[in-house]
Amino acid sequence: MIREDTMQSLHGEMIEWRRYLHRHPELSFKEYRTSDWLADKLESWGLQVRRGVAGTGIVARLVGGLPGRTIALRSDIDALAIQDEKTVEYASSVPGVMHACGHDGHMAELLAVACYYSRHQAETAGTRVFLFQPGEEVLPGGAIGMIRDGALEGVDAIYGVHLWSPLPYGVVATRPGPFMASPDEFEIVVTGKGGHGGLPHQSVDAIVAGAHMVTALQTIVSRNVDPLHSAVVSVGRLQAGTANNVIAERCLLAGTVRTFDEETRRYVSRRLEEVVRHVSDMHGTKASFDFVFGYPPVVNDESEAERVLRIAGGLDGIGEARRMDPVMAGEDFSYYLKEVPGCFFFVGAGAADGSSFPHHHPRFDIDERAMLDAARLLVAVADDSARDSHS
Amino acid sequence: MIREDTMQSLHGEMIEWRRYLHRHPELSFKEYRTSDWLADKLESWGLQVRRGVAGTGIVARLVGGLPGRTIALRSDIDALAIQDEKTVEYASSVPGVMHACGHDGHMAELLAVACYYSRHQAETAGTRVFLFQPGEEVLPGGAIGMIRDGALEGVDAIYGVHLWSPLPYGVVATRPGPFMASPDEFEIVVTGKGGHGGLPHQSVDAIVAGAHMVTALQTIVSRNVDPLHSAVVSVGRLQAGTANNVIAERCLLAGTVRTFDEETRRYVSRRLEEVVRHVSDMHGTKASFDFVFGYPPVVNDESEAERVLRIAGGLDGIGEARRMDPVMAGEDFSYYLKEVPGCFFFVGAGAADGSSFPHHHPRFDIDERAMLDAARLLVAVADDSARDSHS
Amino acid sequence: MIREDTMQSLHGEMIEWRRYLHRHPELSFKEYRTSDWLADKLESWGLQVRRGVAGTGIVARLVGGLPGRTIALRSDIDALAIQDEKTVEYASSVPGVMHACGHDGHMAELLAVACYYSRHQAETAGTRVFLFQPGEEVLPGGAIGMIRDGALEGVDAIYGVHLWSPLPYGVVATRPGPFMASPDEFEIVVTGKGGHGGLPHQSVDAIVAGAHMVTALQTIVSRNVDPLHSAVVSVGRLQAGTANNVIAERCLLAGTVRTFDEETRRYVSRRLEEVVRHVSDMHGTKASFDFVFGYPPVVNDESEAERVLRIAGGLDGIGEARRMDPVMAGEDFSYYLKEVPGCFFFVGAGAADGSSFPHHHPRFDIDERAMLDAARLLVAVADDSARDSHS
Amino acid sequence: MIREDTMQSLHGEMIEWRRYLHRHPELSFKEYRTSDWLADKLESWGLQVRRGVAGTGIVARLVGGLPGRTIALRSDIDALAIQDEKTVEYASSVPGVMHACGHDGHMAELLAVACYYSRHQAETAGTRVFLFQPGEEVLPGGAIGMIRDGALEGVDAIYGVHLWSPLPYGVVATRPGPFMASPDEFEIVVTGKGGHGGLPHQSVDAIVAGAHMVTALQTIVSRNVDPLHSAVVSVGRLQAGTANNVIAERCLLAGTVRTFDEETRRYVSRRLEEVVRHVSDMHGTKASFDFVFGYPPVVNDESEAERVLRIAGGLDGIGEARRMDPVMAGEDFSYYLKEVPGCFFFVGAGAADGSSFPHHHPRFDIDERAMLDAARLLVAVADDSARDSHS
Repeated sequence: MIREDTMQSLHGEMIEWRRYLHRHPELSFKEYRTSDWLADKLESWGLQVRRGVAGTGIVARLVGGLPGRTIALRSDIDALAIQDEKTVEYASSVPGVMHACGHDGHMAELLAVACYYSRHQAETAGTRVFLFQPGEEVLPGGAIGMIRDGALEGVDAIYGVHLWSPLPYGVVATRPGPFMASPDEFEIVVTGKGGHGGLPHQSVDAIVAGAHMVTALQTIVSRNVDPLHSAVVSVGRLQAGTANNVIAERCLLAGTVRTFDEETRRYVSRRLEEVVRHVSDMHGTKASFDFVFGYPPVVNDESEAERVLRIAGGLDGIGEARRMDPVMAGEDFSYYLKEVPGCFFFVGAGAADGSSFPHHHPRFDIDERAMLDAARLLVAVADDSARDSHS
Repeated sequence: MIREDTMQSLHGEMIEWRRYLHRHPELSFKEYRTSDWLADKLESWGLQVRRGVAGTGIVARLVGGLPGRTIALRSDIDALAIQDEKTVEYASSVPGVMHACGHDGHMAELLAVACYYSRHQAETAGTRVFLFQPGEEVLPGGAIGMIRDGALEGVDAIYGVHLWSPLPYGVVATRPGPFMASPDEFEIVVTGKGGHGGLPHQSVDAIVAGAHMVTALQTIVSRNVDPLHSAVVSVGRLQAGTANNVIAERCLLAGTVRTFDEETRRYVSRRLEEVVRHVSDMHGTKASFDFVFGYPPVVNDESEAERVLRIAGGLDGIGEARRMDPVMAGEDFSYYLKEVPGCFFFVGAGAADGSSFPHHHPRFDIDERAMLDAARLLVAVADDSARDSHS
Repeated sequence: MIREDTMQSLHGEMIEWRRYLHRHPELSFKEYRTSDWLADKLESWGLQVRRGVAGTGIVARLVGGLPGRTIALRSDIDALAIQDEKTVEYASSVPGVMHACGHDGHMAELLAVACYYSRHQAETAGTRVFLFQPGEEVLPGGAIGMIRDGALEGVDAIYGVHLWSPLPYGVVATRPGPFMASPDEFEIVVTGKGGHGGLPHQSVDAIVAGAHMVTALQTIVSRNVDPLHSAVVSVGRLQAGTANNVIAERCLLAGTVRTFDEETRRYVSRRLEEVVRHVSDMHGTKASFDFVFGYPPVVNDESEAERVLRIAGGLDGIGEARRMDPVMAGEDFSYYLKEVPGCFFFVGAGAADGSSFPHHHPRFDIDERAMLDAARLLVAVADDSARDSHS
Repeated sequence: MIREDTMQSLHGEMIEWRRYLHRHPELSFKEYRTSDWLADKLESWGLQVRRGVAGTGIVARLVGGLPGRTIALRSDIDALAIQDEKTVEYASSVPGVMHACGHDGHMAELLAVACYYSRHQAETAGTRVFLFQPGEEVLPGGAIGMIRDGALEGVDAIYGVHLWSPLPYGVVATRPGPFMASPDEFEIVVTGKGGHGGLPHQSVDAIVAGAHMVTALQTIVSRNVDPLHSAVVSVGRLQAGTANNVIAERCLLAGTVRTFDEETRRYVSRRLEEVVRHVSDMHGTKASFDFVFGYPPVVNDESEAERVLRIAGGLDGIGEARRMDPVMAGEDFSYYLKEVPGCFFFVGAGAADGSSFPHHHPRFDIDERAMLDAARLLVAVADDSARDSHS
């Protein structure tokens, strides 16, 4: 189905592009040169390119010669505020900024896909829309702006890849339904009344209130959430008091909530606040409560995920198409999936022995062969999806 | 009984001495010049003076002309590492060092008592021993060393005063039995296993363990200690975690324990450790446990306290002899009371309207009239006690 | 001071009276025959007797020949719903009713005192008022009614004795200030929503709410109450659930509160309710809260207790006048002490080796010699107190 | 594929058989007459019947005329100790015993399947093994004995149906992987030391220990179990204490654990014991711990579940083949699935409006049309499975 000769021939350029981008990373929402560089390339291949979408994003369009649906493919384009510690020649040339999450590879492979289609336009069924999205790494993310700026207009389905270093090269993985968590955060400040450590009755002990709060919060997951739905409530920071013999006036609790569906997510945030309010009232303290909603959970369309797994399973060179457990990390690809059906999936880019550095590590790198897998799979999936009958 | 004329005539010198000492404070165990100055004065009045006791302490002795018991009277001599913020002419001349607890007054009044006895030696029954003790403000305190160096040899009873600014001038207060608490401290470090905030099962959450520990520690006072015995267990510091979305590896709990008798004190320290060990084991964390025993509780001899209250109640100029509740602060006078009978008592040195600055405050000061009360009461109590039949 | 000859001569009758009463016990507020029997005796000795006070109570009055204050002495007269298991000839003749607390002895000794005064009326200073009070054993107690019916009119001071089997014969004990606790009770019913044990999210778990409540209640004593004031909050019953695999809909918590002063008592009851309300709200349960105030704490007048200790210490035959710790039991003598100064004290009536059965035990008995001690002490104290100058 | 004419023609007999069985229920492991009645029928149709398997079980075998795999189909045969409250003419004739879970329908439909195959033996591919299993309702269940007695010898795959009243008639539902929970139970007795409610320090409070235990147990689900794996720990009974003013000596905690995989199950049981031990040690109580493992979780083979869903989806008359969430109930069909691949699935037998009585209710009944669905689906699945190539 895929014109493998064309694709294979693009692998060299993918590597070259990716390394160029790796050398020149830009922070979220400031991907000015990256964006221009991408747009120039896309225009040179004859695509209709809309620049400045959601600031520094790009929407490029290619209408195939055959009838079919409109399929969007997305890459994120921002880098992280991390100092590159690799010694390779393509290491970041920008101090304190680094493509430590693989977005450079995402861009290179999506460019290759665009280039591929530009060479096979006549025989392409339907339309391809290429989304190069800014600011995936920082809340509220660039996907919202892309959508608001019309990136999904007319789109029937959307697909996205993450090169994934915990998975070995050769493995493609995803799952129908909930796939990536919503990474929400909360911050609570309990305020009592400080005083002499030997005179608790003249104080209101913020530490005892905070401790009871931590204990009470455990019941949200153990009692309130449907046991068939995953949820995590972790207090990551607990800070109170300045002296051993002084009763603490303030106690900070801050943490993260991970869920895989909106209902559970909203419920947990609501219960959190209730528990905090009532435990605080019980101790006679005051409590502030801030809840920051991160990205929504990435929920793959059931049949689109089955499509990806089926196609990946049948593609030469893909060692394994794995139906994997959800992961606790978040992604703003979730916003697209709330608008149109689609699937987000991982392409293994790590070592077989698990020795690769994790994402966001100063020595993070990818197996560049994975980009070829990703590009081939995107084309195969897009072509298959484009040929679905219009609904 | 007291030769009031002599005593009244010494008040001017008490004020002068106290102000001199206030201007020249020295830190705990470094009271070199203070000690020499005191010893010179005592020798000039003909007392037998032993210098260098417990480092910078003094034991001075005066044998009266009449038979009687040997009575020790004690003053502490050290100052605090606090910057004096008063603007009076007698404010501290030493940057960062200040008599912010009234020990200057204690020295002045005890000097006056020694001077008084030197003028009435022939008519004095029994012996007087004047203890000028270094390092009351820092653990392990100077009293231990004074005792080890023989300060209590031959002593039948001991009395000590604290000028007390929360009490108004004119009030003398103490109580039979437990009077001041033992101020012990503890520090616990719970060590679990850090990890991703969304993957609690791969971590061991030190915050949840720490919170359960705080909660469990409440049962020591609520269930384990005899409700007729006072005890306080306060966690004053609770510190854990570095990031909202990372499960904390370590949790620090540090606090204070206040008790009024040795049995309860030992029991609480033992229960604390048990609770910490078992809660830690329950969560699969490790926990270090350090318990620093401060001074023992100040436990007044029943009949000596009654003596002080009785005599104070009958002394002209003392407005009220109050049987007061115990206080949560500590004092190393407790060590003397474990060796010989005696009583520690407060002489009101604050404003009637409660407006005085508290002890250890940078603007702490005393009502200097209180020194005269204190000196008169010490003489009256010592004379009464000296006339008790030898046991 | 006491006419010992008279008193000694009455001991035989005391024993006889006590055994008669022991054989014929009557339940609280139903002491009809007891009351008549007492009143007849008192009238036969010439006292002014008012019957039917507070139902079955008696107020008897004797005006001495010399000037002096009016002193009330009180005995309780009711028995308990306990089956006497003793085999002595004076065992209870009433099935299921028994003087298992010593009130028979209290009556006998107070009768003896009344008889004593009737023989020495001319030489008695002041007036004596003898209170024979019904219903000490059951809430709200007979003391309230006695007071309402004027039992304390004109009374300057009041004294009462409890024969106390945990103390050996020969010991008299009391303490100034708080002496016996207020025995309050509470009952809480937490109502959640029952359901399948595997589906906690569809239920509201009353057990988890109840458990958190028990845990939270510990902080009332550990944090909220002044550590110098004694307080106990004990949950004695915790009952929830009917099946292992069903989430409990209801959880009962019932317990007792013991305190020694009204302020702490009111505060604890208020905090209890607050904690219950807020913990319940936190879990989404409903909670009913009932608090039954038992008798107030018995708080002895400071100087009256010192009087009793002083006089007991000087009385021949009293082995020891002990200043004892407060006890956790309650007594409605507390109501009298809220009206007039006075002192409640214990007279040891147990075996020296501690082998006596405790109060309320089916085999409870007293050392009858203790009645003589008690009667002698009541006379000595009353006479001393009557001679105080009128205030 | 299915010979619908044959199957339809058997529906009348299914109903007749089911009603006969409904009228004559027998308790677990005592299904003597039921078993004989079934065996007689099976023999009359020419099957090889082995009686007395696992006591009252039956293994019947039919070898088809065409090559193929050996497929087992299972029905449970026991009734419950419930009084039938229905008024229909086929209501139970045995007092206190009732087919309140649908096993009567299971038998009828599996009989029909056996009868069907006996009529189409020549054209049947492979072998069919019919398992009529005793004692599904009581631990340890009859499946273990069936397997031990060789019921699965030579079997390549196994399928089982539960008529399910919460699902409406017309729906077939199952899921790949974990489908039904393991219903384990635990019972804990905490033993402290009883005593006077006002003297907690002389007792060891079993209620406070029990409450802390309930609180601590929440962390097993909230912190220790992989959030992607479902687990429930519910304390259903909490019983302690006899009087409000007595500290409880014993506290009972009993509850249920639900999990969907063996690893989580073993882990939870281990953590439960650890938490109980350490919380008990912390409070100085003793604790007994009993854990009763119920049936293992029912874990469907991935591809067998997909087979059932696929075939059900294609079968006329089945309204919907639903991929459903796991359910918290248990089934000893799990034991077969640990031996050979297979799938357990639900056939909707309830009202469309959800008004049907739940399983184990005294008025439980089924929509008898569901038996026809179940029988048809069993045949279709068995035939499809039998034609798989031998592995």
